[in-house]
Amino acid sequence: MAPLPPRPAPSPVLEPHRLKEPVERILTDFLATKAETTTVGGRLPNLALPLQEFLAAGGKRIRPVFAMIGWHAAGGVGSVDTARHLAASLELFHVCALIHDDLMDRSDTRRGRPTVHRAQAGTYDRRPSGSPPGSPGEDPAVAADRFGEGAAILIGDLALVWSDELLHAGRPTPGQLARVLPLLDEMRTEVTLGQYLDLAHTGCARPEVETALTVLRYKTAKYTVERPLQLGAALAGAEPPLLDALSAYAVPLGEAFQLRDDLLGVFGDPDLTGKPVLDDLRGGKATVLVALALQRATHAQADRLRFFLGCRTLTEDQADAARRIIEATGAHHAVDRMITDRYEEALAALESPFIDPAVTDALRLLADQSARRRT
Amino acid sequence: MAPLPPRPAPSPVLEPHRLKEPVERILTDFLATKAETTTVGGRLPNLALPLQEFLAAGGKRIRPVFAMIGWHAAGGVGSVDTARHLAASLELFHVCALIHDDLMDRSDTRRGRPTVHRAQAGTYDRRPSGSPPGSPGEDPAVAADRFGEGAAILIGDLALVWSDELLHAGRPTPGQLARVLPLLDEMRTEVTLGQYLDLAHTGCARPEVETALTVLRYKTAKYTVERPLQLGAALAGAEPPLLDALSAYAVPLGEAFQLRDDLLGVFGDPDLTGKPVLDDLRGGKATVLVALALQRATHAQADRLRFFLGCRTLTEDQADAARRIIEATGAHHAVDRMITDRYEEALAALESPFIDPAVTDALRLLADQSARRRT
Repeated sequence: MAPLPPRPAPSPVLEPHRLKEPVERILTDFLATKAETTTVGGRLPNLALPLQEFLAAGGKRIRPVFAMIGWHAAGGVGSVDTARHLAASLELFHVCALIHDDLMDRSDTRRGRPTVHRAQAGTYDRRPSGSPPGSPGEDPAVAADRFGEGAAILIGDLALVWSDELLHAGRPTPGQLARVLPLLDEMRTEVTLGQYLDLAHTGCARPEVETALTVLRYKTAKYTVERPLQLGAALAGAEPPLLDALSAYAVPLGEAFQLRDDLLGVFGDPDLTGKPVLDDLRGGKATVLVALALQRATHAQADRLRFFLGCRTLTEDQADAARRIIEATGAHHAVDRMITDRYEEALAALESPFIDPAVTDALRLLADQSARRRT
Repeated sequence: MAPLPPRPAPSPVLEPHRLKEPVERILTDFLATKAETTTVGGRLPNLALPLQEFLAAGGKRIRPVFAMIGWHAAGGVGSVDTARHLAASLELFHVCALIHDDLMDRSDTRRGRPTVHRAQAGTYDRRPSGSPPGSPGEDPAVAADRFGEGAAILIGDLALVWSDELLHAGRPTPGQLARVLPLLDEMRTEVTLGQYLDLAHTGCARPEVETALTVLRYKTAKYTVERPLQLGAALAGAEPPLLDALSAYAVPLGEAFQLRDDLLGVFGDPDLTGKPVLDDLRGGKATVLVALALQRATHAQADRLRFFLGCRTLTEDQADAARRIIEATGAHHAVDRMITDRYEEALAALESPFIDPAVTDALRLLADQSARRRT
């Protein structure tokens, strides 16, 4: 991509860290209260704890930032506390999506720490009332893994349920709820269907570029950028022209964001991303990058690449060979081109007269960071 | 239990099948609409379908019935359509709980049909774009199972998300929402924590009766009876004395219901329950029945019983031996006694002056059916 032109700094009120910090406090306070109120004097488990640990391990809070900018884009009408609760709610919903996603992908680490199902499996032997069962055919390690998986399903479910509670804890007015809920329903349905399509497409022998693009749009672009922006704007009472203008920026940017993620998943620096760089290849993820590589590959290249994809025991050397094939097909370059095209499309959409210039500056900065990031 | 005294028939409007039928129609219509609107011209998968199939396979709709009776108990104030949407919403939430529960328990069948993760695993080979991967170390059967598990997580998540949407589709007033949401939040948190405790307790060498009773209370009694009744009543504007009176009936009845379920899970007729009678023993469920049996068993009996519990390959003969031990310890009889005590406690609570006599009749009938059922 071409070097960046100098950007005006966004208005201080729209700086990401300023938008994030109060949302972070809402999440922290909410989970601290849950840790106290839901355990019924120690008779019930403290499942706020794994969620606190998950959030403390990091994360970009990109959805809360977009939601808050959307709210400002529509004039910041109504209580800022309600907007921050909506933003916090999106993050907690995302925690559910990540916990369940890691389980489906069988990922061992996230943000440099054990994933929830792995961490929970590790607690199995420390249960209060008992050693693992001595029944025949029940391997203690298998029992621990199964416990970890079940626990991660439930902890994700709880994050989803609590994300709803957080939204309502912000005391939205009936009018605000009526505007926000249809978009929230859309968002939660879209991301779930996108994830299912992704799962069904993973490990396919001939992944389709078209399907990979649909996954990209629903699982990431709409979910990560479009809906959070629109939700914040709708909360403040945005009319359709603004919602459409935000969408015209958000969908291409969200696609660029995920295409960058796919590149980082294969070519990125694991010290920066916090994710082992072999996970995407080992998981056989049918990304646009992979679909393009297989489409462009010679017969021999495709056979070798297919051999590597989804191989759970893939070595670093084999991963290097896979990377070289992907490079050789020109898929890496093609994806870079797609990122640039979408990034430019997103910037062009910011010319809309419906978006306030201060907001435009903030969105331009986020576009730069999303499309050009290394983590 | 003693023979039943003759019961007055409940008022026609409170007959379970009359309460159920309009709720059923709401569920059917909702999912039919989802099947059309969420697939985006075939680009996204139709995940309404597995939910439609799940509901069509049966189920008692016990939570909707209790919710509707609760609504009538508080005078049936407000739109009956709103009440029915709340009732339908509880059923769809329950679909999520069952799909995730079956996955955690690794159950193969539910209501006489393959569970969702099994059915989804069966669809894996029919994916549009590809045979299973030819990668080393990736057994196609394992890949199909993993797909089924991931799909069941997502389909359950979608049922949860859509249960929320159903509640709001009933257009509750702001006042109704303010009364209902705190109870709904409680219910969803309680059942999730109860399930986690159940999971952590499963397969314990020395399951505690006290923990088994806590699981019973949170995972079933409050979730199946107390909260649905209170939610319906709160929707109609019930005051605390009525909510408390309903709770005094509901918690012991809900415990009796689950204790009966535990007995049926070990001693029931699989032709009537639709669940293989070996599942509970094979799963090593730490029910009150099992905890009591282990507590009362001789050393030799406990060793043998522990050998059988959680054994995934348990034979019919071994199950019979396990049943004989449970009988011999007196645990079966003790659980029967606990059911009778709770059933009587529930009936005594119906003497409350806050509960209308027509509602009392309906609740008494449901108590008979819950505590004495064979399915």
